Amino acid sequence: MTDLQPLYRHIDGAFDRHLERIRGFVRQPSISGEGVGMQEMAELVRDTIRRLGGSAEIAPTPGWPVVHGAIDAGRRKTLLLYGMYDVQPVEGEDWMVPPFAGEAVDLPEVGQSIVARGIYNTKGPLAGLFNVLESIQAVDSRLPVNVKFVVEGEEELGSRNLPGFIHAHKDRLGADATFFAFFCQDRRGKPVLWLGVKGIQYFEVAVRGGAWGGPRTRGVHGSNAVWVGNPAWRLVRALGTMLDDEEQIRIEGFYDDIVSPSAEEEALLENLAKTFDPETQLAMWDAERFKYNLAGAALLRKYLYNPTLNVDGIWGGYTGPGMKTLLPHEVRVKMDVRLVPNMEPEHVRERILAHLHRIARDDIQVHFYDGYPPAKTSVNEPAVQAMIRTVRALKGEPEIWPHLAGSAPFYLFRRVLNQPFVMGGLGHGGRPHSPNEYATIDGMRLFERSVGRFLYEFATA
Amino acid sequence: MTDLQPLYRHIDGAFDRHLERIRGFVRQPSISGEGVGMQEMAELVRDTIRRLGGSAEIAPTPGWPVVHGAIDAGRRKTLLLYGMYDVQPVEGEDWMVPPFAGEAVDLPEVGQSIVARGIYNTKGPLAGLFNVLESIQAVDSRLPVNVKFVVEGEEELGSRNLPGFIHAHKDRLGADATFFAFFCQDRRGKPVLWLGVKGIQYFEVAVRGGAWGGPRTRGVHGSNAVWVGNPAWRLVRALGTMLDDEEQIRIEGFYDDIVSPSAEEEALLENLAKTFDPETQLAMWDAERFKYNLAGAALLRKYLYNPTLNVDGIWGGYTGPGMKTLLPHEVRVKMDVRLVPNMEPEHVRERILAHLHRIARDDIQVHFYDGYPPAKTSVNEPAVQAMIRTVRALKGEPEIWPHLAGSAPFYLFRRVLNQPFVMGGLGHGGRPHSPNEYATIDGMRLFERSVGRFLYEFATA
Repeated sequence: MTDLQPLYRHIDGAFDRHLERIRGFVRQPSISGEGVGMQEMAELVRDTIRRLGGSAEIAPTPGWPVVHGAIDAGRRKTLLLYGMYDVQPVEGEDWMVPPFAGEAVDLPEVGQSIVARGIYNTKGPLAGLFNVLESIQAVDSRLPVNVKFVVEGEEELGSRNLPGFIHAHKDRLGADATFFAFFCQDRRGKPVLWLGVKGIQYFEVAVRGGAWGGPRTRGVHGSNAVWVGNPAWRLVRALGTMLDDEEQIRIEGFYDDIVSPSAEEEALLENLAKTFDPETQLAMWDAERFKYNLAGAALLRKYLYNPTLNVDGIWGGYTGPGMKTLLPHEVRVKMDVRLVPNMEPEHVRERILAHLHRIARDDIQVHFYDGYPPAKTSVNEPAVQAMIRTVRALKGEPEIWPHLAGSAPFYLFRRVLNQPFVMGGLGHGGRPHSPNEYATIDGMRLFERSVGRFLYEFATA
Repeated sequence: MTDLQPLYRHIDGAFDRHLERIRGFVRQPSISGEGVGMQEMAELVRDTIRRLGGSAEIAPTPGWPVVHGAIDAGRRKTLLLYGMYDVQPVEGEDWMVPPFAGEAVDLPEVGQSIVARGIYNTKGPLAGLFNVLESIQAVDSRLPVNVKFVVEGEEELGSRNLPGFIHAHKDRLGADATFFAFFCQDRRGKPVLWLGVKGIQYFEVAVRGGAWGGPRTRGVHGSNAVWVGNPAWRLVRALGTMLDDEEQIRIEGFYDDIVSPSAEEEALLENLAKTFDPETQLAMWDAERFKYNLAGAALLRKYLYNPTLNVDGIWGGYTGPGMKTLLPHEVRVKMDVRLVPNMEPEHVRERILAHLHRIARDDIQVHFYDGYPPAKTSVNEPAVQAMIRTVRALKGEPEIWPHLAGSAPFYLFRRVLNQPFVMGGLGHGGRPHSPNEYATIDGMRLFERSVGRFLYEFATA
């Protein structure tokens, strides 16, 4: 394989400039949920691809546009680079630095880092990917593989218009594999590889006064709670029927489609259990204990193969300072289900609806956001093997997970484009969807080396 | 008794000016929960009493001050006029007119009204009370009774510093009775008299991540809900243990202290049931049905003698637009208990704490706001009889309720000052603690007549 030392030296020499590009990406807010800075961010991505000599367009969708493009290097193999340019809101969060300033902070546990919304999830990796393509072109004149780009603006909204885009542009998106670049080292530096992702179904439930009772259009004086029903109690009861005290989901048929881990997956779980460190995980997620008294492979099996019914947010009535007695007319909850292998979002929707309709047909309103199923690639795929070789060469043996606990719409690449996908890259970040999201600066440098090496490994795979 | 026609004519002649005083009172915001306009409102009340020739002071408390004063008319009898100058917040409410503009609106069901925060509860009646005192002085040179004033600024906060004030000023507050002026006609114009009030205990419950699990200091990525506990589910379960599907409170000992209605009260209930109109009540509270399949005296018995455990507000996690997957670290709920005869707030607090501590000693935090017990006066008290005669003379037979479903700290007058109390006054208002709180303009004029007559009736009682 090509000697990569010149590339690594170029990355090191250009890294101050590379870091400025990364900071520039996070300084441009792009909050899809609130519609902040989306067009500007899409243009920044498009222009960055064009500066690399690629073609690039901003394709409109019914929501936020998709930036797509290509760099034809005249090579045998082609890689589809999937990414996203949107980030989560910061509303109600308390940050140590402004979330869109791209400031460097020396974090006690991980060292010099950029603390900003999107630095980890995922404008840091996206900008780093562009950096490494630039370095390769500087050192080697052309890329080792042809690349295509699909950078969506609605990942944090459940990628609701990505399916439409992928279907419409199917003929132009052919590639040997899809690659999603991400910082994949944990807090102790251990490199991790995920072979798949969970699916997700996000939804919102509203309970209002109606035929069952309760105030219909406005909150009323709290003294009426003695004889007029309260939607908050009705919601509490409805939620109480959905999950039991042992965290088992009580929605009929909810577990029916789930398949047990395959032999390959069980082998991965057993292997994972050897290096899996529960304390690191608990520290990352700010918790003292897991909700199951399990350890090793049994805990990992729950983590990866158990569907989740989560309360993301709940609100209703008077939530301001001090006392206000009120009988509210509406209480709402945002929830999500994480879909494990073989669960389909439409079945999940049907079962949730059937469950809530058994409680009350007309009075509990459910709004489903667009959901998608899980997806995975075999460890034996050449693209996955190229990533494993990359990580081994730069950092040592990776920890291989059957899939991520998080969700991404990779089913589109597997099912629609019929491509294996791989996600990876060295580097470390944390606190996605939380205040003080960060990524380490040393990790970003290593990320660029790893992505560079991966492209060469994949070219020769 | 004195011929009241000259007084009524004076009220009518001066009513445009009177209405401007009322509008001036509601145009001065005085939101005790948010600390908005409180000093200004206290000064307005003090200055109004002084302009009537009374003495008046603003007495500091650890919270918002109490305005107190007196007009010595050299009469045999003395009435303590209790009122409040604070109002509820309007945060998050959608109003047809700005809530502090004092605007007149022709409401389809009740006619020309002032729509403003506090017009009904209770700066409208307070300003109207001052108006009628002014008219009496203009017509009769001196009032038929001596009056003392106690106008607090924390009624909407549970009157937390009124007990301290009453105890400290006990010697100066002696009177033959306490009077609380209020608009007491329902939407159909029927005059109502309440002989008492419920007590209240307001509290807030917070569930955070801790030893039981859950994120401790920040929300984390929602995918972790599969193995890290969610405070929202923990709160849902805790709430689920407090009230069963039949709306029975499941807190041990909660019903122990409650006494059955007395013979006098049962007689009132039976009488009430004859004129009680459930449809009017449902329309007032914007509901299609009551939560009990009861009617007549049985429904009224529930309404007045059943304690309530209400959810005033609930919130936690992501509550903004669109999707955000989040495992929240804290979820909170504001609740209140309405105390019926013979319940004491300290017993209620003990039982709630014991219940929640049985679920989890350290992880569920409870903050109790100051509470107070219920209070009542016998229908046979001279002050009550004077009000009944007043209503009969001006409007016809009043509907007499053993007590209000709402709460007020009248136990202070009964227990500490040892005075009977009466609340009353003609007039109609609605939507207290809600958007578009209103009171009718015709009702305000009638209110002034009724309060004037009551003072003369009481003087001769």
